[in-house]
Amino acid sequence: MLEKTTRTTPSRYANQRMSYDEAIVFPILDNALFCTVSYSIDNQPFSIPTAFVRKENKLYIHGSVGSHFLREIEKGIPVCISVMLTDALVVAKSAFNHSVNYRSVVIFSNAQRIDDYETKASFFKELTEKIVPNSWEYLRPMKSKEVNKTMLLVFDIVEASAKFRSGMPIDDDEDQNLPIWSGLIPISSRRLIPIADDLSVNIPLPKHLSHEL
Amino acid sequence: MLEKTTRTTPSRYANQRMSYDEAIVFPILDNALFCTVSYSIDNQPFSIPTAFVRKENKLYIHGSVGSHFLREIEKGIPVCISVMLTDALVVAKSAFNHSVNYRSVVIFSNAQRIDDYETKASFFKELTEKIVPNSWEYLRPMKSKEVNKTMLLVFDIVEASAKFRSGMPIDDDEDQNLPIWSGLIPISSRRLIPIADDLSVNIPLPKHLSHEL
Repeated sequence: MLEKTTRTTPSRYANQRMSYDEAIVFPILDNALFCTVSYSIDNQPFSIPTAFVRKENKLYIHGSVGSHFLREIEKGIPVCISVMLTDALVVAKSAFNHSVNYRSVVIFSNAQRIDDYETKASFFKELTEKIVPNSWEYLRPMKSKEVNKTMLLVFDIVEASAKFRSGMPIDDDEDQNLPIWSGLIPISSRRLIPIADDLSVNIPLPKHLSHEL
Repeated sequence: MLEKTTRTTPSRYANQRMSYDEAIVFPILDNALFCTVSYSIDNQPFSIPTAFVRKENKLYIHGSVGSHFLREIEKGIPVCISVMLTDALVVAKSAFNHSVNYRSVVIFSNAQRIDDYETKASFFKELTEKIVPNSWEYLRPMKSKEVNKTMLLVFDIVEASAKFRSGMPIDDDEDQNLPIWSGLIPISSRRLIPIADDLSVNIPLPKHLSHEL
Protein backbone atom coordinates (compact mmCIF):
# COMPACT_ATOMS: atom_id res chain seq x y z
CA MET A 1 0.00 0.00 0.00
CA LEU A 2 1.06 3.56 -0.69
CA GLU A 3 1.54 6.15 2.00
CA LYS A 4 -1.64 7.93 3.15
CA THR A 5 -0.79 11.43 4.35
CA THR A 6 -2.72 14.64 4.89
CA ARG A 7 -1.70 15.65 1.36
CA THR A 8 -3.23 12.52 -0.14
CA THR A 9 -6.42 12.60 1.96
CA PRO A 10 -9.19 14.57 0.23
CA SER A 11 -11.69 16.71 2.08
CA ARG A 12 -14.62 14.98 0.35
CA TYR A 13 -15.31 11.28 -0.33
CA ALA A 14 -12.20 10.41 1.71
CA ASN A 15 -13.50 6.92 2.32
CA GLN A 16 -15.05 6.31 -1.08
CA ARG A 17 -13.66 6.87 -4.54
CA MET A 18 -10.09 6.75 -3.16
CA SER A 19 -7.38 4.13 -3.15
CA TYR A 20 -3.83 3.84 -1.89
CA ASP A 21 -3.40 0.39 -3.44
CA GLU A 22 -0.69 -0.03 -6.09
CA ALA A 23 -2.99 -2.51 -7.86
CA ILE A 24 -5.37 0.42 -8.51
CA VAL A 25 -2.84 3.27 -8.88
CA PHE A 26 -0.32 1.62 -11.23
CA PRO A 27 -2.77 0.52 -13.98
CA ILE A 28 -4.18 4.08 -14.14
CA LEU A 29 -0.64 5.39 -14.67
CA ASP A 30 0.08 2.70 -17.27
CA ASN A 31 -3.08 3.59 -19.20
CA ALA A 32 -2.15 7.26 -19.45
CA LEU A 33 0.38 8.51 -22.00
CA PHE A 34 0.74 11.94 -20.42
CA CYS A 35 0.88 13.39 -16.94
CA THR A 36 0.89 16.97 -15.67
CA VAL A 37 3.95 17.84 -13.60
CA SER A 38 3.52 20.83 -11.28
CA TYR A 39 6.18 22.63 -9.29
CA SER A 40 6.38 25.93 -7.54
CA ILE A 41 8.85 28.80 -7.37
CA ASP A 42 8.17 31.42 -4.66
CA ASN A 43 4.66 29.96 -4.34
CA GLN A 44 3.96 30.51 -8.04
CA PRO A 45 2.83 27.16 -9.46
CA PHE A 46 3.84 25.99 -12.95
CA SER A 47 2.33 22.98 -14.74
CA ILE A 48 3.78 21.09 -17.69
CA PRO A 49 2.18 18.16 -19.53
CA THR A 50 4.69 15.46 -20.47
CA ALA A 51 4.97 11.81 -21.47
CA PHE A 52 6.13 9.35 -18.82
CA VAL A 53 6.91 5.74 -18.00
CA ARG A 54 5.98 3.96 -14.78
CA LYS A 55 8.22 1.04 -13.82
CA GLU A 56 7.82 -0.68 -10.48
CA ASN A 57 7.32 2.10 -7.92
CA LYS A 58 9.04 4.78 -9.98
CA LEU A 59 7.88 7.28 -12.59
CA TYR A 60 10.28 8.57 -15.28
CA ILE A 61 10.13 11.71 -17.43
CA HIS A 62 12.65 13.08 -19.89
CA GLY A 63 13.47 16.13 -21.97
CA SER A 64 16.24 18.21 -23.41
CA VAL A 65 19.18 18.93 -21.10
CA GLY A 66 18.42 22.59 -21.95
CA SER A 67 14.84 22.45 -20.65
CA HIS A 68 14.19 25.16 -18.09
CA PHE A 69 11.44 23.06 -16.53
CA LEU A 70 13.65 19.99 -16.00
CA ARG A 71 16.51 22.08 -14.68
CA GLU A 72 14.20 23.55 -12.05
CA ILE A 73 12.77 20.27 -10.83
CA GLU A 74 16.05 18.34 -10.94
CA LYS A 75 17.00 20.40 -7.88
CA GLY A 76 14.67 18.12 -5.93
CA ILE A 77 11.98 20.69 -5.13
CA PRO A 78 8.48 19.37 -4.23
CA VAL A 79 6.54 18.21 -7.28
CA CYS A 80 2.93 17.14 -7.78
CA ILE A 81 2.28 14.77 -10.68
CA SER A 82 -1.30 14.23 -11.80
CA VAL A 83 -2.98 11.99 -14.35
CA MET A 84 -6.63 11.87 -15.36
CA LEU A 85 -8.45 9.42 -17.62
CA THR A 86 -12.05 10.25 -18.56
CA ASP A 87 -14.37 7.26 -18.96
CA ALA A 88 -17.87 8.76 -19.30
CA LEU A 89 -20.05 11.80 -18.89
CA VAL A 90 -22.62 11.04 -16.20
CA VAL A 91 -25.97 12.47 -17.32
CA ALA A 92 -28.48 12.78 -14.46
CA LYS A 93 -32.09 13.98 -14.53
CA SER A 94 -30.92 17.32 -13.09
CA ALA A 95 -27.88 19.39 -14.05
CA PHE A 96 -26.81 19.47 -10.41
CA ASN A 97 -26.39 15.68 -10.28
CA HIS A 98 -24.39 15.46 -13.49
CA SER A 99 -20.91 14.06 -12.94
CA VAL A 100 -17.97 12.43 -14.68
CA ASN A 101 -16.63 8.90 -14.50
CA TYR A 102 -12.87 9.19 -14.33
CA ARG A 103 -9.73 7.58 -12.94
CA SER A 104 -7.06 9.91 -11.60
CA VAL A 105 -3.78 9.67 -9.73
CA VAL A 106 -1.87 12.27 -7.75
CA ILE A 107 1.74 11.74 -6.68
CA PHE A 108 3.76 13.97 -4.36
CA SER A 109 7.45 13.42 -4.92
CA ASN A 110 10.85 14.91 -5.76
CA ALA A 111 12.97 14.37 -8.85
CA GLN A 112 16.31 12.65 -8.94
CA ARG A 113 18.44 12.92 -12.08
CA ILE A 114 19.71 9.70 -13.60
CA ASP A 115 23.08 9.95 -15.32
CA ASP A 116 23.75 6.26 -15.84
CA TYR A 117 23.94 5.67 -19.60
CA GLU A 118 22.39 2.21 -19.59
CA THR A 119 19.43 3.30 -17.47
CA LYS A 120 18.82 6.24 -19.79
CA ALA A 121 19.05 4.06 -22.89
CA SER A 122 16.63 1.52 -21.47
CA PHE A 123 14.17 4.28 -20.52
CA PHE A 124 14.01 5.31 -24.19
CA LYS A 125 13.14 1.79 -25.17
CA GLU A 126 10.43 1.58 -22.52
CA LEU A 127 8.90 4.93 -23.43
CA THR A 128 8.88 4.11 -27.15
CA GLU A 129 7.32 0.69 -26.49
CA LYS A 130 4.68 2.30 -24.26
CA ILE A 131 3.68 4.88 -26.89
CA VAL A 132 3.99 2.62 -29.97
CA PRO A 133 4.08 -1.02 -28.80
CA ASN A 134 6.51 -3.39 -30.55
CA SER A 135 8.17 -0.61 -32.55
CA TRP A 136 11.60 -0.38 -30.90
CA GLU A 137 13.41 -3.07 -32.91
CA TYR A 138 12.01 -1.67 -36.17
CA LEU A 139 13.34 1.88 -35.69
CA ARG A 140 16.77 3.29 -36.56
CA PRO A 141 18.88 2.42 -33.47
CA MET A 142 19.40 5.09 -30.84
CA LYS A 143 22.72 6.96 -30.99
CA SER A 144 24.80 7.62 -27.90
CA LYS A 145 24.78 11.37 -28.58
CA GLU A 146 20.96 11.25 -28.48
CA VAL A 147 21.06 9.57 -25.08
CA ASN A 148 23.62 12.10 -23.86
CA LYS A 149 21.62 15.19 -24.78
CA THR A 150 18.53 13.95 -22.98
CA MET A 151 17.89 14.46 -19.29
CA LEU A 152 16.14 11.63 -17.42
CA LEU A 153 14.42 12.27 -14.09
CA VAL A 154 12.90 9.69 -11.76
CA PHE A 155 10.30 10.07 -9.01
CA ASP A 156 9.52 7.60 -6.25
CA ILE A 157 5.83 6.69 -6.17
CA VAL A 158 5.35 6.48 -2.41
CA GLU A 159 3.02 9.32 -1.38
CA ALA A 160 0.35 8.77 -3.98
CA SER A 161 -3.33 8.02 -4.35
CA ALA A 162 -5.99 7.23 -6.91
CA LYS A 163 -9.35 8.94 -7.04
CA PHE A 164 -12.12 7.76 -9.31
CA ARG A 165 -15.82 7.60 -10.01
CA SER A 166 -17.64 4.84 -11.84
CA GLY A 167 -21.23 3.76 -12.34
CA MET A 168 -24.52 5.42 -13.09
CA PRO A 169 -25.83 8.87 -12.07
CA ILE A 170 -27.15 9.28 -8.55
CA ASP A 171 -30.37 11.25 -8.79
CA ASP A 172 -32.29 12.76 -5.90
CA ASP A 173 -35.02 10.45 -4.55
CA GLU A 174 -37.75 12.84 -5.63
CA ASP A 175 -36.35 12.96 -9.19
CA GLN A 176 -36.22 9.23 -9.78
CA ASN A 177 -39.64 8.91 -11.43
CA LEU A 178 -39.25 11.93 -13.72
CA PRO A 179 -39.60 10.99 -17.41
CA ILE A 180 -36.11 12.38 -18.11
CA TRP A 181 -33.45 10.18 -19.64
CA SER A 182 -30.41 9.51 -17.42
CA GLY A 183 -27.35 7.39 -17.99
CA LEU A 184 -23.80 7.49 -19.31
CA ILE A 185 -22.15 8.88 -22.42
CA PRO A 186 -18.95 6.81 -22.61
CA ILE A 187 -15.87 8.66 -23.83
CA SER A 188 -13.22 6.76 -25.68
CA SER A 189 -9.77 7.88 -26.74
CA ARG A 190 -8.82 5.91 -29.85
CA ARG A 191 -5.93 5.62 -32.25
CA LEU A 192 -7.06 6.11 -35.84
CA ILE A 193 -5.60 4.84 -39.12
CA PRO A 194 -1.93 5.89 -39.44
CA ILE A 195 -1.11 8.60 -42.02
CA ALA A 196 2.23 8.18 -43.87
CA ASP A 197 4.44 11.20 -44.44
CA ASP A 198 5.95 11.97 -47.86
CA LEU A 199 9.11 10.00 -47.00
CA SER A 200 7.06 6.87 -46.35
CA VAL A 201 4.34 6.68 -48.98
CA ASN A 202 6.05 3.72 -50.66
CA ILE A 203 7.07 1.99 -47.44
CA PRO A 204 4.67 -0.70 -46.19
CA LEU A 205 3.04 0.03 -42.86
CA PRO A 206 4.90 -2.19 -40.35
CA LYS A 207 3.05 -5.02 -38.69
CA HIS A 208 3.09 -3.34 -35.27
CA LEU A 209 1.00 -0.49 -36.75
CA SER A 210 -1.26 -2.64 -38.93
CA HIS A 211 -3.63 -3.56 -36.13
CA GLU A 212 -4.58 0.11 -36.02
CA LEU A 213 -6.25 -0.31 -39.45
CA MET B 1 -3.34 39.72 -27.74
CA LEU B 2 -2.64 38.19 -24.34
CA GLU B 3 0.15 39.32 -22.08
CA LYS B 4 3.58 37.85 -22.84
CA THR B 5 5.62 37.66 -19.64
CA THR B 6 8.66 35.72 -18.49
CA ARG B 7 6.26 33.15 -17.05
CA THR B 8 4.60 32.60 -20.41
CA THR B 9 7.83 32.56 -22.46
CA PRO B 10 9.24 29.03 -22.79
CA SER B 11 12.96 28.26 -22.82
CA ARG B 12 12.61 26.25 -26.05
CA TYR B 13 10.72 27.01 -29.28
CA ALA B 14 9.86 30.46 -27.90
CA ASN B 15 9.26 31.79 -31.40
CA GLN B 16 7.60 28.72 -32.86
CA ARG B 17 4.82 26.57 -31.53
CA MET B 18 3.63 29.42 -29.28
CA SER B 19 0.79 31.90 -29.47
CA TYR B 20 -0.54 34.72 -27.36
CA ASP B 21 -3.51 35.27 -29.68
CA GLU B 22 -6.99 34.79 -28.21
CA ALA B 23 -8.08 33.38 -31.59
CA ILE B 24 -5.73 30.44 -30.92
CA VAL B 25 -5.97 30.20 -27.13
CA PHE B 26 -9.77 30.37 -26.71
CA PRO B 27 -10.72 27.57 -29.15
CA ILE B 28 -8.27 25.22 -27.39
CA LEU B 29 -9.98 26.00 -24.08
CA ASP B 30 -13.42 25.56 -25.63
CA ASN B 31 -12.45 22.16 -27.04
CA ALA B 32 -11.34 20.85 -23.65
CA LEU B 33 -13.83 19.66 -21.05
CA PHE B 34 -11.30 19.54 -18.22
CA CYS B 35 -8.37 21.61 -17.04
CA THR B 36 -5.77 21.02 -14.35
CA VAL B 37 -5.72 23.71 -11.66
CA SER B 38 -2.46 23.96 -9.70
CA TYR B 39 -1.77 25.99 -6.61
CA SER B 40 0.90 26.00 -3.99
CA ILE B 41 1.04 26.11 -0.20
CA ASP B 42 4.49 26.69 1.32
CA ASN B 43 5.98 25.82 -2.09
CA GLN B 44 4.24 22.44 -2.13
CA PRO B 45 2.26 22.27 -5.40
CA PHE B 46 -1.18 20.64 -5.61
CA SER B 47 -2.99 19.83 -8.86
CA ILE B 48 -6.69 19.15 -9.35
CA PRO B 49 -8.45 18.25 -12.60
CA THR B 50 -11.83 19.93 -12.97
CA ALA B 51 -14.46 20.91 -15.54
CA PHE B 52 -14.58 24.53 -16.63
CA VAL B 53 -16.28 27.09 -18.85
CA ARG B 54 -14.51 29.83 -20.82
CA LYS B 55 -16.61 32.92 -21.55
CA GLU B 56 -15.03 35.97 -23.12
CA ASN B 57 -11.69 36.45 -21.35
CA LYS B 58 -12.69 34.59 -18.19
CA LEU B 59 -12.51 30.98 -17.04
CA TYR B 60 -15.00 29.59 -14.50
CA ILE B 61 -14.77 26.54 -12.24
CA HIS B 62 -17.14 25.35 -9.55
CA GLY B 63 -17.46 22.87 -6.73
CA SER B 64 -18.94 22.25 -3.32
CA VAL B 65 -18.73 25.11 -0.85
CA GLY B 66 -17.04 22.51 1.39
CA SER B 67 -14.23 21.79 -1.05
CA HIS B 68 -10.82 22.23 0.56
CA PHE B 69 -9.29 22.96 -2.83
CA LEU B 70 -11.72 25.78 -3.69
CA ARG B 71 -11.43 27.28 -0.23
CA GLU B 72 -7.66 27.51 -0.64
CA ILE B 73 -7.68 29.13 -4.05
CA GLU B 74 -10.58 31.49 -3.36
CA LYS B 75 -8.08 33.38 -1.18
CA GLY B 76 -6.61 34.69 -4.42
CA ILE B 77 -3.27 32.85 -4.26
CA PRO B 78 -1.36 32.36 -7.54
CA VAL B 79 -2.84 29.60 -9.70
CA CYS B 80 -1.65 27.90 -12.88
CA ILE B 81 -4.37 26.42 -15.08
CA SER B 82 -3.33 24.03 -17.85
CA VAL B 83 -5.17 22.25 -20.64
CA MET B 84 -3.81 19.72 -23.13
CA LEU B 85 -5.48 18.18 -26.16
CA THR B 86 -3.64 15.33 -27.91
CA ASP B 87 -4.07 15.17 -31.69
CA ALA B 88 -1.57 12.55 -32.86
CA LEU B 89 1.45 10.46 -32.00
CA VAL B 90 4.30 11.53 -34.27
CA VAL B 91 6.20 8.42 -35.39
CA ALA B 92 9.65 9.20 -36.82
CA LYS B 93 12.25 6.85 -38.27
CA SER B 94 14.18 7.06 -35.01
CA ALA B 95 12.86 6.96 -31.44
CA PHE B 96 14.67 10.21 -30.70
CA ASN B 97 12.65 12.14 -33.26
CA HIS B 98 9.29 10.81 -32.10
CA SER B 99 6.98 13.55 -30.88
CA VAL B 100 3.35 14.39 -30.16
CA ASN B 101 0.96 16.71 -31.93
CA TYR B 102 -0.92 18.57 -29.24
CA ARG B 103 -2.59 21.86 -28.39
CA SER B 104 -2.06 23.20 -24.89
CA VAL B 105 -2.82 26.33 -22.92
CA VAL B 106 -1.32 27.64 -19.70
CA ILE B 107 -2.95 30.47 -17.73
CA PHE B 108 -1.45 32.26 -14.72
CA SER B 109 -4.18 33.90 -12.71
CA ASN B 110 -5.92 34.32 -9.35
CA ALA B 111 -9.42 33.25 -8.37
CA GLN B 112 -12.23 35.59 -7.47
CA ARG B 113 -15.37 34.17 -5.87
CA ILE B 114 -18.69 35.04 -7.46
CA ASP B 115 -21.60 35.29 -5.06
CA ASP B 116 -24.16 36.84 -7.40
CA TYR B 117 -27.03 34.35 -7.72
CA GLU B 118 -27.86 35.08 -11.37
CA THR B 119 -24.24 34.76 -12.49
CA LYS B 120 -23.96 31.44 -10.65
CA ALA B 121 -27.20 30.16 -12.15
CA SER B 122 -26.16 31.12 -15.66
CA PHE B 123 -22.78 29.41 -15.19
CA PHE B 124 -24.58 26.14 -14.52
CA LYS B 125 -26.48 26.48 -17.76
CA GLU B 126 -23.31 27.23 -19.70
CA LEU B 127 -21.38 24.34 -18.16
CA THR B 128 -24.22 21.89 -18.80
CA GLU B 129 -24.58 23.08 -22.41
CA LYS B 130 -20.82 22.76 -22.93
CA ILE B 131 -20.71 19.18 -21.63
CA VAL B 132 -24.02 17.98 -23.12
CA PRO B 133 -25.11 20.48 -25.81
CA ASN B 134 -28.81 21.40 -26.00
CA SER B 135 -29.69 19.50 -22.83
CA TRP B 136 -30.45 22.34 -20.40
CA GLU B 137 -34.12 22.88 -21.24
CA TYR B 138 -34.78 19.12 -21.10
CA LEU B 139 -33.47 18.61 -17.56
CA ARG B 140 -35.28 19.06 -14.25
CA PRO B 141 -34.88 22.80 -13.51
CA MET B 142 -32.13 23.88 -11.15
CA LYS B 143 -33.19 24.61 -7.55
CA SER B 144 -32.01 27.68 -5.68
CA LYS B 145 -30.58 25.52 -2.88
CA GLU B 146 -28.40 23.78 -5.49
CA VAL B 147 -27.05 27.11 -6.68
CA ASN B 148 -26.44 28.19 -3.09
CA LYS B 149 -24.40 25.17 -2.08
CA THR B 150 -22.07 25.54 -5.03
CA MET B 151 -19.03 27.81 -5.08
CA LEU B 152 -18.21 29.55 -8.34
CA LEU B 153 -14.74 30.94 -8.98
CA VAL B 154 -13.62 33.04 -11.94
CA PHE B 155 -10.14 33.67 -13.35
CA ASP B 156 -9.11 36.43 -15.74
CA ILE B 157 -7.41 35.06 -18.85
CA VAL B 158 -4.77 37.75 -19.33
CA GLU B 159 -1.36 36.15 -18.72
CA ALA B 160 -1.84 33.09 -20.89
CA SER B 161 -0.35 31.32 -23.87
CA ALA B 162 -0.92 28.42 -26.21
CA LYS B 163 1.75 25.91 -27.13
CA PHE B 164 1.24 23.33 -29.85
CA ARG B 165 2.81 21.06 -32.41
CA SER B 166 1.26 19.96 -35.66
CA GLY B 167 2.45 18.29 -38.85
CA MET B 168 4.66 15.37 -39.75
CA PRO B 169 7.76 14.01 -38.00
CA ILE B 170 11.06 15.83 -38.58
CA ASP B 171 13.69 13.20 -39.22
CA ASP B 172 17.43 13.77 -39.34
CA ASP B 173 18.71 14.44 -42.88
CA GLU B 174 20.75 11.24 -42.88
CA ASP B 175 17.67 9.20 -41.85
CA GLN B 176 15.35 10.41 -44.58
CA ASN B 177 16.05 7.62 -47.06
CA LEU B 178 15.84 4.80 -44.55
CA PRO B 179 13.14 2.26 -45.46
CA ILE B 180 11.40 2.83 -42.13
CA TRP B 181 7.78 3.97 -42.02
CA SER B 182 7.17 7.43 -40.54
CA GLY B 183 4.00 9.43 -40.14
CA LEU B 184 1.18 10.15 -37.71
CA ILE B 185 -1.13 8.02 -35.59
CA PRO B 186 -4.11 10.36 -35.05
CA ILE B 187 -5.73 10.16 -31.62
CA SER B 188 -9.41 10.89 -31.32
CA SER B 189 -11.51 11.30 -28.20
CA ARG B 190 -15.06 10.30 -29.07
CA ARG B 191 -18.42 10.05 -27.38
CA LEU B 192 -19.87 6.56 -27.75
CA ILE B 193 -23.49 5.35 -27.76
CA PRO B 194 -25.28 6.48 -24.56
CA ILE B 195 -26.10 3.79 -21.99
CA ALA B 196 -29.41 4.23 -20.12
CA ASP B 197 -29.55 3.59 -16.39
CA ASP B 198 -32.28 1.46 -14.80
CA LEU B 199 -34.48 4.50 -14.21
CA SER B 200 -34.43 5.33 -17.93
CA VAL B 201 -34.72 2.06 -19.84
CA ASN B 202 -38.27 2.92 -20.95
CA ILE B 203 -37.58 6.61 -21.60
CA PRO B 204 -36.73 7.54 -25.20
CA LEU B 205 -33.25 8.92 -25.73
CA PRO B 206 -33.77 12.68 -26.17
CA LYS B 207 -33.04 14.24 -29.54
CA HIS B 208 -29.97 16.10 -28.24
CA LEU B 209 -28.33 12.74 -27.46
CA SER B 210 -29.54 10.90 -30.57
CA HIS B 211 -26.78 12.23 -32.81
CA GLU B 212 -24.38 10.25 -30.64
CA LEU B 213 -25.88 7.03 -32.05
